[in-house]
Order: sequence, then C-alpha cells, then structure tokens
Amino acid sequence: MADKRISIYDTTLRDGAQGEGVHFSAKDKLFYMQKMIEAGIDYVEAGWPGANPKDDEFYRTMSSWADSAENQDWRLRTRVVAFGSTCRVGESPEKSDSLNGLIASGANTLTIFGKTWKLHVETVLRTSPQENLRIIRESVEYLVKAGKEVFFDAEHYFDGWQDDPAFALSCLEAAMLGGAKGLVLCDTNGGTYTREITNGVQIVRQELSPAILGIHTHNDGGLAVVNTLAAVEAGVDQIQGTWNGFGERCGNANLSTLIPWLQLKLGYQLLEPEVLHNISYLSRYVAELANYPFDEKQPFVGRSAFAHKAGMHVDAVMKNNRTFEHIDPASVGNERRVLISDQSGKANLCLKMRRFKPEIEKDDPLVELAMERIKNAENEGFQYETAEGSLDLLLLEILGKYEQPFTLEDYHVWSDPLRGELDSVAVVKVQVGDKQVHIAAEGDGPVHALDQALRSTLGAFFPAIEESELTDYKVRVLDGSRGTGSVVRVVVETKHGVNTWGTIGVSSNIIKASAKALLDALYLVILSSQGKA
Amino acid sequence: MADKRISIYDTTLRDGAQGEGVHFSAKDKLFYMQKMIEAGIDYVEAGWPGANPKDDEFYRTMSSWADSAENQDWRLRTRVVAFGSTCRVGESPEKSDSLNGLIASGANTLTIFGKTWKLHVETVLRTSPQENLRIIRESVEYLVKAGKEVFFDAEHYFDGWQDDPAFALSCLEAAMLGGAKGLVLCDTNGGTYTREITNGVQIVRQELSPAILGIHTHNDGGLAVVNTLAAVEAGVDQIQGTWNGFGERCGNANLSTLIPWLQLKLGYQLLEPEVLHNISYLSRYVAELANYPFDEKQPFVGRSAFAHKAGMHVDAVMKNNRTFEHIDPASVGNERRVLISDQSGKANLCLKMRRFKPEIEKDDPLVELAMERIKNAENEGFQYETAEGSLDLLLLEILGKYEQPFTLEDYHVWSDPLRGELDSVAVVKVQVGDKQVHIAAEGDGPVHALDQALRSTLGAFFPAIEESELTDYKVRVLDGSRGTGSVVRVVVETKHGVNTWGTIGVSSNIIKASAKALLDALYLVILSSQGKA
Repeated sequence: MADKRISIYDTTLRDGAQGEGVHFSAKDKLFYMQKMIEAGIDYVEAGWPGANPKDDEFYRTMSSWADSAENQDWRLRTRVVAFGSTCRVGESPEKSDSLNGLIASGANTLTIFGKTWKLHVETVLRTSPQENLRIIRESVEYLVKAGKEVFFDAEHYFDGWQDDPAFALSCLEAAMLGGAKGLVLCDTNGGTYTREITNGVQIVRQELSPAILGIHTHNDGGLAVVNTLAAVEAGVDQIQGTWNGFGERCGNANLSTLIPWLQLKLGYQLLEPEVLHNISYLSRYVAELANYPFDEKQPFVGRSAFAHKAGMHVDAVMKNNRTFEHIDPASVGNERRVLISDQSGKANLCLKMRRFKPEIEKDDPLVELAMERIKNAENEGFQYETAEGSLDLLLLEILGKYEQPFTLEDYHVWSDPLRGELDSVAVVKVQVGDKQVHIAAEGDGPVHALDQALRSTLGAFFPAIEESELTDYKVRVLDGSRGTGSVVRVVVETKHGVNTWGTIGVSSNIIKASAKALLDALYLVILSSQGKA
Repeated sequence: MADKRISIYDTTLRDGAQGEGVHFSAKDKLFYMQKMIEAGIDYVEAGWPGANPKDDEFYRTMSSWADSAENQDWRLRTRVVAFGSTCRVGESPEKSDSLNGLIASGANTLTIFGKTWKLHVETVLRTSPQENLRIIRESVEYLVKAGKEVFFDAEHYFDGWQDDPAFALSCLEAAMLGGAKGLVLCDTNGGTYTREITNGVQIVRQELSPAILGIHTHNDGGLAVVNTLAAVEAGVDQIQGTWNGFGERCGNANLSTLIPWLQLKLGYQLLEPEVLHNISYLSRYVAELANYPFDEKQPFVGRSAFAHKAGMHVDAVMKNNRTFEHIDPASVGNERRVLISDQSGKANLCLKMRRFKPEIEKDDPLVELAMERIKNAENEGFQYETAEGSLDLLLLEILGKYEQPFTLEDYHVWSDPLRGELDSVAVVKVQVGDKQVHIAAEGDGPVHALDQALRSTLGAFFPAIEESELTDYKVRVLDGSRGTGSVVRVVVETKHGVNTWGTIGVSSNIIKASAKALLDALYLVILSSQGKA
C-alpha cells in the first residue's frame, strides 16, 4: 500500500450548490468554512464572486477573517478558492469582469474553467480553436501576474480527449503556458467509462508536468467515485468532490465515500485519523446545513451502512464482525444497527428484548407475540427501524414491565390559519393517577398547540418533561395517491440528557399521528427519569 | 462494441427487501411479477419459501398461474426463482427443510447460497472445509435430481478468493460437481475493489465452465455498479441486481443504472428497445410498490438526472444537447428539465416566461422582478423545482395575465381525533365574483376536511374542479430541530385530463401550508379549463 499524500478540493459550496434542492446562504457558507478548516480540508471552493451578491458578501467576510491573527493557527492549511470563467471570446483579460471579480474577491487561490472539447468551442463559444487557446492562456496569465495561485478546470476534458486528443491536450498546455499551478481534468457530463478516465489521465501525466493534477467527476453514469479512484491510481494528486455527492443532475464525486476508500482501503493519506473518525458526523452536518435530506444508504457514513436485517447476518456479525462488515463502522464514526422487522427473525428481536429481560430465550411465546404485534403494526404503516423508542415501549408492555404513567383521555384542536402567529388552540384532558387535568394551550399550528398543551399539563407532574427537548419532527405521507386523505407517518426525536429516542405515530389524521408519537416520547422521558427505560 | 446477450437476474423481491424500509406484501409481489414478465426480465428471485408464510403464499399462487395457458405467450421468458440455503452441517439433503421447501415451492429454477470464505466456514458454520464442500455438492445434486435448474450463489466469493483462492475455487467446483447450471460470484460485504472483481472472475473463467456465470455485488464501497460492469467485461453472462439499488445496508447493484450502461454505452443486448425506453417509469413503479422514496438523483432514471440549474448549461443544451447530456434522456424514458432558482440565472427564467409572453427579453424589468420574488420565496422555504404549477401562477401574476378566479376569505378547522373516522370539520368562506359561499365539510383529518370543503364549494362554480384529481400529497418538515413548531413545506400534485401540476405551500401551520398548495392547484385547474394556463 502506498502512503502517498493527496489533496482534497471541496466544491460543495459551488458545484454542490448546483444540485436540485441544495441551498447555502452567505452565513451558512461561513459556518461551513469553519468546519472544513477544523477538518483540515486542503481547498474549499466557496462560490463564484460576481455571479451573485451572496458570494461577494461571503468572500469579503472571509478574506478579512483570513487576514486576522487566527490564520497563524497550525491547522489552518485550508485555502479558500474563488471560482469563475476565463475572459470572453474577443475580450482581453484586463477587461474581463469575471477575472477582475476573482481578483477582487481577495481569495489567494483562483480556479477558472475553460473549454477543451471542440464541440463546445464550435457550438457554444462559436469561435476558432486558436481563440480558445488564447483566452485560456491569457486569462491564467493575468491572474498569475496578480499574484494568485491558479487552477485550470478543463471542462469536458474526457469527452474532448476522446473526440480530438491533440486539441484537448493543447488546451491544457495553454493553461500551463499561462502559469497554472494545477490542471483539473473534468468529466463534466459524468458519462465517461472508467477505462477512458485512466487513459485520459495517463496521457496528461506523460505529456505535461503540472505541479498539481486534479480530477473532477460527475455521477451521471453512477461511476463518479470509481472514476476518481481510477484517476488517483493513474497519477492525479488532487481529488475534487462534494460532501454527500451533492451537485447538478446526479451529483459530483462523493467525498464522504472517497475519503474512507482512499485512506482506509488504498493507503493514501488525506485527513488526520481523528477527523476520519468523525466523517459520518461531518457528512450529516453538511446535509443539515444545506437543509437537504441525508442519504441514509450512503456508503460508510449512512445510518443504514452497517444495519443488518437478516437474522443470519446478525448472528454471524455477533461471532465476528468481519463476516458481514467490510470495515469497522467505528473507523468512520458510524455504528452497527440491528433492525427489527418481519424479515428479521426472532434472533434479532430476542436480542432487543434481553435488554429488559436478560433471561428470555428465542422460543419464549412472548417473543412470538412481539413478532406478531410488530408485523401487524408494520402492515398499518409503522416502521420501528427509525423509531426504536416506540419499539422499546411495545416490548416493555409485552414483557409486563410498563404501565402508562398517565393517559390522554381526550383532546381537541382548533385552527384559524388566517388569524396570525399563534393561530391554533389545543385542549387536552389528561388523567395522572387519581387526578384529572383539563388544559388549553395556543400554538403555531395545531400540532405545536397540542405539544404545548401536553407539556404544560404534564410538566407539573413530571419535571423531567421540562428538561426534555424535541429535537426533530418528520412527516411522511405513506401513499400520496389518496391525496389529503392519505395515511401519514410522524416520527419525532426527543432528547433528555444523554438519551435520544425516536417515536412514531401513524394515522390518516396528522394530528392523531403526531399525538401518538408525542405521547410515546413523553412516556419514555418519564420512564427513563424513573430508571425504567 | 460487442453485441452479446447477457441475462438479468432480478433479486429486488428477495435481497432488495432486506433493505431498510423496503417491504412487499404477497399481493405486491404478484403485481411486481406481472410488470417484470411484461418487461421480459430473465430471472426474478421472488422470496425464500419456508422462511415466512408470505413467501409460501406467493409461490403457491405463482406456480398455479405459470401452469396456465398464458404461459404460452411469447413474451413469457421470465423464470420465477425461489431462494434458499444448502442443507445444514451434518444434515443429509433429504432431511433438509430448506431444500424440501424449495422443491415444494413449485419454482423450476432454484438458487441456493453456500460458503466460500474460510472465515465463515470456521467461525459461522464451525465445521471442516470438507463438510462445507459436501453440503454444497449434495444440496445442489438433490435439487438437480428433483428436476430443477439450480444456481449456486457463492457467498463472499471475492473475500474468500483473496483469503484462500484454492479453497474458494473448490467450493465452486463442488457446486459444479452437484450439477449446478449457474455459478454466481457474490461480493456479499460489498467492499471489494474493482480490480479484485476482475481478477476473481477471470480465474473462474479459466478454471471452470459453468453454463452460466453470474455476478452479485453490493454497494458498501459505492462501487456496486462498476464492479458488475467489470465482471461483465471479465466474462460473466448474468448480472444480479435490484431496481433502484434496493438492498441491505447500502443496497445491491442498481439495475436501473446497469441496464442503460450495458445496453446504451457498452453495446450489450438486455431488454427490447421499447422496454428500455420505459425504464424510468419501471424504476419508479417499483419504488411506489415498495412504498420507498424514489431517489431522484439516480443516474439515467431520476427526475434530476437531466435537470439543469446553471444558466450557462441551459444555454448550451439548447444549442446542442450533447454539450451537457451524456445520453439522450428520451432513450431511457426520461426528460430534460430546466430548474429555476436563485442560482439559475435570468436566461432560464426568461425561457419559462416566454411560454406566457413570447416576446419577453432577458433584460425586461419583469424578469428581474420575477427573479426577486423567487429569491424571497426560496428564503421562506419555497422550492419551485418540484412545484412548477405554483411557479406558473407567480409568473402569470407578474406578467399581469392572472386574476384569482375566487378568493378564500376565511377558513377554520376543528379536529377531534378520538372521535372516529371523519374526525375533523372545516368551514370555508369563499368569494366567487359577487357571490359569497360559506360551507362546512367533514374529513379524515383536518387537511382532508379542508380539501373536501373547498371542492364542494367551488365545484358548483367550476365544473373542471370535479374532473380534477389530487394524485399526490407530500409533506416535508424544513428544520425539524424546532420540533412541532417547525416550518413545513407541502407539495400537492393534481391531475386534470392530460395535465399534471405540482403546487406548493410553506408555513409553520401544516393546515395553512396545505391550503396554499391546494388553492394553487384549484386555480390552475380553473385556468387551464379556460385555456389560460
């Protein structure tokens, strides 16, 4: 195994933000930079100054911050990169708004893209090959003379190279003549086969000698990761990608997959080990910041990546984790999960039940009963895989170890949406021991009102409820084709001290589904504060 | 390019159903089979008879159906496969419930898996290498003698081969000696690097001569697709996979990606061209049936796969679609989309506006105004990428071509969730021209009640509303960390004749968000029935 250093060039904030549904505000970008600096990412391409005011604002803030004392910190190896285009056809670089915007951004590293595929020169730029070479060379040169470190993104390099190798290489050469420090070979359309990536990289390594050779792939053929790995093996020393594979169309090469591959399996050095151990969290952080649903099936970092459903697999993993895990989940800050479903078999369920009754065996009729109850609930739309708190309550009940600490006798909700902020009212009737409480509360929407009413009623009896916090609320419509009468599944996540639970409710009435999930959460908070769950 | 025939072995119903959140009922499986038979899939592995009653029921129904006259149809090349394990250590095949269950299933093709990795033989089976060879050979032989076509799934073949090549090959040989028609090389843990897949396949091709050699990969390293492609190039003639890449942990090799790759780019023959042109629909159908969210970023078949956000890309694609599309979207039944967002630039927006005002130019102040309105709405949580109907209304309004055909003056909703089925009531006050209507309706949950009230009120004025149909309803919580007070985004899909629109509402009150989306949908139905949208 090699022990070669490769640099990471992260374009989540720029090319990643081209992805459908991915958005970062200028403030998000600053939070993001902080995390990437802490993680020691080499290059972060953060936007396209001049293209929108959000990016201009970001670079202004960033460059004043980078000049400050903190810059001296040893961890600060991260360079903020500004992205843009060459000058236009027929334009001199001095007159180019794009190039002058880049210089004005204050970033010390600048990346500009240019054409290397004749088809684009002819149909999009509508100019001669010579003019294309001129705008590349002169644009790079102009930025280099301004004291910048310059990368050249060779757009469509692989398509261009397959179409006309000599022309594609001449474009790269133009960038080198202009003084580019790095050449980045881009599979812009994302449809290139791995073999052609290898060939395309090797020829550049033979013909040219850039200080840094990078690779930038897209996932239109589902090969972005392997195409990057192949490029590394063929001689590139920088990988461009995005966290979680965010990006236009099918996305960019996924750094959350590439970094573990290169570092854990192929012996390259990219991040400090403690950062790698944190990569599951880091990937999730980026998705949260972009407010984009995290792909739980993602290799290495997804919640499902080490989740075992088949009973036999669970059995084997308990004996030796290598039997069904290709790496140790802890090496990427992830963890093994045992899923309960009608597929999973009694062995898994029995393991879960032993937490509450250590002596229970697989052939106990209560295990069978629990299996039955779970199957029925799943038929109604419940899914305990993401709501293990509700599963715990079900198992405790079956084991005879659980009595409801209170009951919700009745509740009603009104909503008057045109009224203003607190537009909804909930009334709840709750029985705690021999006391009955009837209380109303306002809220921002009917579910919020219900939550407020329950908490204010029960907080007086169970102080733990006031210390607990609702940390996530999710709604999924199970079969949208029945329109607004569809069954919805609500999952809430609740935190109390170091514990976090997912709880679930299912109903065609969203308020009822939410009430069930909220009640389960409150039950768990109370039980755990009493040391019972 | 080769023009070689490869068979497809689809394990969506079996290995795919091991995926977190993927479920098929016995009835779902019958619907599924119908689709796959129509598509001409070669082999469909549908379950594990004996493992659960659902699968037994399925095979009973299926085998009586396959014996019927319809079986004579020329398209019926599909074979239904039953899956199971070898006999146990120390057990004779005649005594094996697993093997006898497979025979009893009535399926003519049977697949059994067995161990080929010494680690598993030693730590999981806890037996000798010789006994492992015996159970493989005798199990296959027993099924072959019962008149079945038998495939042997060589579990962990690649890990086993890297660990002890001679042992792994001897296990395959045992299956051949038993009379197996097919050998399937499995990367069960999904962590193998492509190079080792190629090597592992090549050695089998040199040493053994199965009638069919198959490949079965998992996506734990993000390489399931490329590992299957590499295996094909190294000599396998059958690919195992699942639609949409469903499957345990990070999923199986994705047929929705593999089939277009092999057929459109590498020249292999798998499906009839008209089936390939339908593959986007087929993939989505499977996700709907499994009630699993469709991954819109999927290569080839996802809604985002040909969605362009960057203004420059849109511009170039209009000139020549090859500039930013690696294949023609129509070849896989997909389509190009132009996205509108604050990233997308005026060129995209202007294109959209020209549908309503053909003469408008990019520098028209109305384009700027629309841009501004969209940006503001996106800051509030709107996203027009999936709600192009609401975007149309916004643009029509800005162009002065839209007047609300009615206004919702006021509305109230009550919900009494413990009451039973129609547990909610909505009251709406609507102004249509000079008429005011005040009406109430019951519903299953507050949103359904509101929908009912609006439709019954407005249907009398606008008959088109009664012909329209709500076909999808989706809810997304935008920032779950604010719990039940979080902002939610509601998107509804409405169908009227050949038109379908997505419309959107955003609010911290789910009823208000739904009302906004429903209103937009009703406005569009009315406008289109009047020929205005």
